[in-house]
Amino acid sequence: MSPLPPRHADLSHLTADQVRLAIRQDGYARHTAGLAAGKLQCNLAILPAQDALDFLRFCQRNPKPCPVVGISDTGNPFMPTLGHDIDIRTDVPRYRVFRNGQFTDEITDIKALWRDDLVTVALGCSFTFENALIANGIPVRHIESDQTVPMFKSNIALTPAGRFAGEMVVTMRPVAAGRVQDAYQISRAFPQAHGAPIGHGDPAQFGIADLMKPDWGDPVEVQDGEIPVYWACGVTPQNVLLAANLPLCITHAPGHMLIADVAEDAETTILKT
Amino acid sequence: MSPLPPRHADLSHLTADQVRLAIRQDGYARHTAGLAAGKLQCNLAILPAQDALDFLRFCQRNPKPCPVVGISDTGNPFMPTLGHDIDIRTDVPRYRVFRNGQFTDEITDIKALWRDDLVTVALGCSFTFENALIANGIPVRHIESDQTVPMFKSNIALTPAGRFAGEMVVTMRPVAAGRVQDAYQISRAFPQAHGAPIGHGDPAQFGIADLMKPDWGDPVEVQDGEIPVYWACGVTPQNVLLAANLPLCITHAPGHMLIADVAEDAETTILKT
Repeated sequence: MSPLPPRHADLSHLTADQVRLAIRQDGYARHTAGLAAGKLQCNLAILPAQDALDFLRFCQRNPKPCPVVGISDTGNPFMPTLGHDIDIRTDVPRYRVFRNGQFTDEITDIKALWRDDLVTVALGCSFTFENALIANGIPVRHIESDQTVPMFKSNIALTPAGRFAGEMVVTMRPVAAGRVQDAYQISRAFPQAHGAPIGHGDPAQFGIADLMKPDWGDPVEVQDGEIPVYWACGVTPQNVLLAANLPLCITHAPGHMLIADVAEDAETTILKT
Repeated sequence: MSPLPPRHADLSHLTADQVRLAIRQDGYARHTAGLAAGKLQCNLAILPAQDALDFLRFCQRNPKPCPVVGISDTGNPFMPTLGHDIDIRTDVPRYRVFRNGQFTDEITDIKALWRDDLVTVALGCSFTFENALIANGIPVRHIESDQTVPMFKSNIALTPAGRFAGEMVVTMRPVAAGRVQDAYQISRAFPQAHGAPIGHGDPAQFGIADLMKPDWGDPVEVQDGEIPVYWACGVTPQNVLLAANLPLCITHAPGHMLIADVAEDAETTILKT
């Protein structure tokens, strides 16, 4: 009988490479929020090389939802600019597989699916600026209440590239009215993690009908004296990839991120080698 | 007899799109420093699509010398994310053409060279952070003395991608000892324009033998009480492209930049369309 996989709490004091090893060797397959504090966590998009140039163009044209923090060589599962010995086939807790625009599998490694023509694109995630908000005394309610951030389909058109197009997905966090401008300034310093909010106030201006009915995640109440603040969301590229009907595309499962060795507040996301 | 082309002074109060029109229609073919104040100016690399994915990987891995601010569609000479009606074949004052790693021509438009497989990559340039230094009371001597910034081949290895590799080219600006940390903080806010310095002090640590003998540009004296400060330079990608021996590659001529409609201090380099 093999030992039970480790729990989230078992990993809470490990370094980024130790967490990756626990995922790769010990079968850890749960979410990564709060692990390897201070290190960059990444959304993933793995796709055939023939679509990679257009996808990179798409990300460059939509930098707030799609901040690129790493790109692999074609067919190479290692990502040395993001971390020591990262093997993208095994070092993420859960993957989602899409074929021809349909979700087909959620799995814990992609060794059997790896091909010589695959390119991995790693994208920054909101954990980074959330940590900065909290460190600057702006509480983040969905974290305090152990919920998932509410996400909404917006009416904000993305700038297309090739077959990649669509509307931005946004997250909402309530912020005390007196701290809204601080929230802009703090998160703007993290262009690798969605940057400043895309707006605040009335949800209707972004085509959101009801803040208590998110398209993904949990509803979070906006209390008296608070203003809803909206940020670009890393679910955006996943939706765009899905809509592009690629023959094969692999992403992380939501919340189950790649943890890099790069500090989340580093000037660039490239490790000095 | 056609009229004489306009002089630099004739363009000094024009908007970015008016300057581009003066280049396209009136034959302005001189440098762009100081024109369309406050707008982003760009280095250019135009190359065949078959090498574009590797070149974008190279830029992503070396973001300080190679900050990507725009990517065209393959074969499309327009760059709507950077500006209204930008035609990359005509809107830059001077271009340099390289074939198989050899400089072959310096010309004022590339209409005759345009091909359906060309991709334009626009990269940020140092004008942006120099303006910010000056606005924050840190003088820039080569600008005050109307010289070209001194540039040096360094021993700093770049992170390779495909056939793209080499060492970083750096610029040097003397800064008063008491303002060196300010210079880091001010320029770090412009990741689209080389960001914070890559170092300061003894030039030997970067393999530079003599600060008064730059590889390109003019020598600039470091005076008593000043420290030489080094930034990543946009000549880096040009050298790397040259060394890659591409069948065809087109760049701007040094100092003769593409002027975008994007504000140089905007959070992203993507125009809202």
